[in-house]
Amino acid sequence: VKNHKTHCYAYKEKPMNIDALLAKRTRNMETNAIREILKVVSRPGMVSLAGGIPAPDSFPMAIIGDLTAAVIARYGSGAFQYDATEGFGPLREALSGYLASLDVTAAPGEILVASGSQGVLDALGKVLISRGDDVAVEAPTYLGALSAFNPYGPTYLRMDTDENGLVPESLEEILRHHSVKFVYLVPNFQNPTGRTLPLKRRRQIARILQENDALLVEDDPYRALRYQGKDLPPIHSMAPDNVIYVGTLSKVFAPGLRIGFCVAPSPIRRWLVRVKQGVDLHTGTFSQALAAEYITSGSLGRHLPRILDLYRPRRQAMLRALQDHFPPGFAWSRPEGGMFLWVSGPAGMDMETLYEPCVRRNTAFVPGKYFYTERGEGVETMRLNFTMANGNAIERAIATMAEVIRKGV
Amino acid sequence: VKNHKTHCYAYKEKPMNIDALLAKRTRNMETNAIREILKVVSRPGMVSLAGGIPAPDSFPMAIIGDLTAAVIARYGSGAFQYDATEGFGPLREALSGYLASLDVTAAPGEILVASGSQGVLDALGKVLISRGDDVAVEAPTYLGALSAFNPYGPTYLRMDTDENGLVPESLEEILRHHSVKFVYLVPNFQNPTGRTLPLKRRRQIARILQENDALLVEDDPYRALRYQGKDLPPIHSMAPDNVIYVGTLSKVFAPGLRIGFCVAPSPIRRWLVRVKQGVDLHTGTFSQALAAEYITSGSLGRHLPRILDLYRPRRQAMLRALQDHFPPGFAWSRPEGGMFLWVSGPAGMDMETLYEPCVRRNTAFVPGKYFYTERGEGVETMRLNFTMANGNAIERAIATMAEVIRKGV
Repeated sequence: VKNHKTHCYAYKEKPMNIDALLAKRTRNMETNAIREILKVVSRPGMVSLAGGIPAPDSFPMAIIGDLTAAVIARYGSGAFQYDATEGFGPLREALSGYLASLDVTAAPGEILVASGSQGVLDALGKVLISRGDDVAVEAPTYLGALSAFNPYGPTYLRMDTDENGLVPESLEEILRHHSVKFVYLVPNFQNPTGRTLPLKRRRQIARILQENDALLVEDDPYRALRYQGKDLPPIHSMAPDNVIYVGTLSKVFAPGLRIGFCVAPSPIRRWLVRVKQGVDLHTGTFSQALAAEYITSGSLGRHLPRILDLYRPRRQAMLRALQDHFPPGFAWSRPEGGMFLWVSGPAGMDMETLYEPCVRRNTAFVPGKYFYTERGEGVETMRLNFTMANGNAIERAIATMAEVIRKGV
Repeated sequence: VKNHKTHCYAYKEKPMNIDALLAKRTRNMETNAIREILKVVSRPGMVSLAGGIPAPDSFPMAIIGDLTAAVIARYGSGAFQYDATEGFGPLREALSGYLASLDVTAAPGEILVASGSQGVLDALGKVLISRGDDVAVEAPTYLGALSAFNPYGPTYLRMDTDENGLVPESLEEILRHHSVKFVYLVPNFQNPTGRTLPLKRRRQIARILQENDALLVEDDPYRALRYQGKDLPPIHSMAPDNVIYVGTLSKVFAPGLRIGFCVAPSPIRRWLVRVKQGVDLHTGTFSQALAAEYITSGSLGRHLPRILDLYRPRRQAMLRALQDHFPPGFAWSRPEGGMFLWVSGPAGMDMETLYEPCVRRNTAFVPGKYFYTERGEGVETMRLNFTMANGNAIERAIATMAEVIRKGV
């Protein structure tokens, strides 16, 4: 082995020019600022309001050993073998029942399991977006969706939002003037704003989609994390032929299993399956079997209230701390669920100027401007996560931020 | 919920024109013939020589319960949380050691874990291929690679092969006349031919790559499945700056965990990570933790000989049955490892004509022509898998095929 190495190295005189080999789409891909921010978060001692990840103590660790044993007993080697691209049969069965409880009507065969909802979003981008195609997104919107769509080269059309989420008239206006491949929105406890579309707007949006023959990607990861108020039916239930409903078990089971899913009109689902086959053949079988067991054994139903009991006081602690510490001129959302609050400061005040001083004091958050597709929007906003830190840490972090705001700006 | 449904349905008069929404790349994607063939395989009673999947009894089921328990004890909720796109730290550490034993020098930080080697191939296509770019592949080549690359629109340049795999002069000729984004090959027990590149050719190929500043994707899934002969060093060890080495645990642990990996020159790896973030955020954490435990506990080293002991006699049974039953005019490869034999019939005889009659007799295989990028090549060839069925079933299947050949053609 050593010999031929030396031999061949002699031929090598200059390093390869890798840049010349990159695809056009790659050269156009931007650095993800959030990714850089989140790297800071893992520093010891940091109180992070920056991430969007569930608390590890929200996972059903008490039963995970039993779940794995049950899966191995029930499915044996079948839980470790290659499986259908569409998803593991027993999980699709289980999801069909779970979705029925969420007003999403879908036979098992109509459900596609993917590697996280990210996997659904990537497949949708691949199937639907050609370079330059218009995709309508909320301003602000979920960054992970943009990072799934970006490689396919869409042009984003921004839709207005207010404290009740997407403004239906803004959607209508865009569909009137543009040939949009699809509309993307997060209807419940949106990332980053925490806002939820009221029932009336859902009906309006369903009607607008139908009247315009338009396709909606309804991304609904946070729905089950409702701490107060009443669950609202998805837009999918009002216009199933026009909506791709996207869900995940990341917030109600464990994100590290990477289980997402979608219910899509069958002509699109057929292509999603073909595309997914090229991307990863199928989602991990063992993870899917665990998810099936978690749902069918009733564990999800029993465990979910514990997750809500964990997060409810954290949300409360953050709202109280903001009330107690933040100076006048600041306003924030009061979401009934989810993982995020959205804070707006005085017009023109750039929240990124707070970032460095806060991090120096071991407090991290995400400046809101990164969630906008248009430069210059949202400089006075920020996203605060309340699921990761406990109530005391949240109280301290908000107090620290308030101090930085008063002193630093 | 019922009310608004009825209400909104009234607006819906015609079905959506989904076809009009598809991306250009989607409209160009072909149906995968193999996929249709493999659907037949799952029929009860079928003896399948068609698939490319490991035998379920090759999985380490006897220790899988202990492995899951060890992972839960060692990593706790960390095995179920979101994790780094690059891969789970302990798995990258474990793979670094494993790869060293395979003559692949890579620090943990130089290894990217993906969702199967399919995940690596998709990411490579996304990072490197713009529509119309040249990619050089063996004739015949691995279909899963084509299904990963196809959506990005490459033009394939076919390279000649013989019983020793890729003919180096063919690669040299192509690199002289074309600006190739990358060369793709499977050096050991190739899918579909079972052929292995001899050491001398590996050295030639390494030199050719270096002289031409060309990039090779060296896909090496079968290497550990060697039943006789001596392991050969990868081309990566001879020209590491020019080679992306791709591996998987699917053949030595379990494919349903979807653990692949690659070692790539750092400018490419950086982009692969960014692309993968948009595709699935990261590969399943629990699966990766199981893989780490499987390697570091020594289980892989202890279990691999059992896999070889399972497959060795199956390969032997197939070679013997071919010898006993197949008519003159047929020839086949005698691979020292892997999962496949490659059979060639008399020139011009289309093996697809055997397919239906064989399936009617519960025997499935894959006509070889599907593994070629150029239509009309390889009609007289077929791929036979020897890992899935046991020796007796293989003997019967080959006898059946021989009967069909004698009677039917």
